[in-house]
Amino acid sequence: MSRLTVFGIEGIGEIRPGHDLAGLIADAAAAGSDTGLADGDVVVVTQKVVSKAENRLVPVDPDDPLSHKPLVEQESVRVLRRRGDLVISETSHGFVCANAGIDLSNVERGWAALLPVDPDRSARRLRDGLRARAGVEVAVIVSDTFGRTWRRGVTDVAIGCAGVAGIVDLRGTEDALGREMQVTEVAVVDELAAAAELVMGKASGVPVAVVRGVDATWLRDGNVLDEVVRHPNDDLFR
Amino acid sequence: MSRLTVFGIEGIGEIRPGHDLAGLIADAAAAGSDTGLADGDVVVVTQKVVSKAENRLVPVDPDDPLSHKPLVEQESVRVLRRRGDLVISETSHGFVCANAGIDLSNVERGWAALLPVDPDRSARRLRDGLRARAGVEVAVIVSDTFGRTWRRGVTDVAIGCAGVAGIVDLRGTEDALGREMQVTEVAVVDELAAAAELVMGKASGVPVAVVRGVDATWLRDGNVLDEVVRHPNDDLFR
Repeated sequence: MSRLTVFGIEGIGEIRPGHDLAGLIADAAAAGSDTGLADGDVVVVTQKVVSKAENRLVPVDPDDPLSHKPLVEQESVRVLRRRGDLVISETSHGFVCANAGIDLSNVERGWAALLPVDPDRSARRLRDGLRARAGVEVAVIVSDTFGRTWRRGVTDVAIGCAGVAGIVDLRGTEDALGREMQVTEVAVVDELAAAAELVMGKASGVPVAVVRGVDATWLRDGNVLDEVVRHPNDDLFR
Repeated sequence: MSRLTVFGIEGIGEIRPGHDLAGLIADAAAAGSDTGLADGDVVVVTQKVVSKAENRLVPVDPDDPLSHKPLVEQESVRVLRRRGDLVISETSHGFVCANAGIDLSNVERGWAALLPVDPDRSARRLRDGLRARAGVEVAVIVSDTFGRTWRRGVTDVAIGCAGVAGIVDLRGTEDALGREMQVTEVAVVDELAAAAELVMGKASGVPVAVVRGVDATWLRDGNVLDEVVRHPNDDLFR
């Protein structure tokens, strides 16, 4: 029976444009007591540090709390709903989220962080970097914090991944009573992002967590944009 | 730094109406190697076994794969969308999900399982039962598998809870750079349900999992219906 462990990587420090994020993660993991990376780990990295390392930072008026709003319009390909200052829109990636994924928390005053241009590619680069830096074959998920249409509160989901399935398809496998199962395409990559968030906290400055013990059959080539993002023509509410 | 472990409880067996589910969970946990329950654990129980124990079973024509559809209409207070056989509706609890949460998987042929009448109450009863049966102070989450509006694949979410916060409100706490945070009401109860699903699998007959190591400040009175379910007047898409 599988047993997962989930732990944060401390001591990564503030990330700046051009930093070698994979190297910093590998070093911090190795420096921690009992946090060294191992083959088969799923390393979950928050969008904010990926965007900083990739220099997706844009200057904004530090005295205007709405100064990032023009960026929200710029980064949206379709606005679905507005209420007050809140914009629910579709990004160029196809994500539907608040304010095109742009916010000012955990970014230095006077700057806003945009989403990575291609978060799956970001995940692949980090995976390659961790292989080179730490000698381990891990999966990488880039996570972000999204709201939900029908439920209050936010949860972390995957916006990019590498080395792990976005969706695990159990359709057609038998359930515990030997009947063919019905809707069972499980978005494991989002469940892994959610599990990682539980040890990160939003304010504690731990932007990377590891999920260890994941089903080895899930550790294949995968991505978020093709597997998880629902095409606009397929949903029932756009 | 927090470190979570997540593990399934095996050997619970097929649940039938009237079974003492708390007693069966306590016994199975104690019988497993290294799965005994401890104070502070979050015990995640799938809706299907809760519904069976509470006799929320309704006979359906075993030869008609759509025989549960009249039940879907009956259990819906508002139908939001239809596409083919799929109904997205709001249940009496306020959940928005496919087919009013009714499906035929992991239920004996000829029967459909409805959602518990009050899943928060179900969670409270299980929590009380585990205290009585195993002498432990645990939190309980009743989980179910829901789709998402904008993303493919399903994930597990909480439909009821007891002894754990539905939402942890980090608004107004400082982020890692000392700035006041913005949207930070985290639905930890849904992230815990998602983490538990990672060790259950859909077809493996493990309807209960434990998350150990959860932040002690989250272990307070909580519930899903008031905290997590978004009121119809508050969402932007109903």
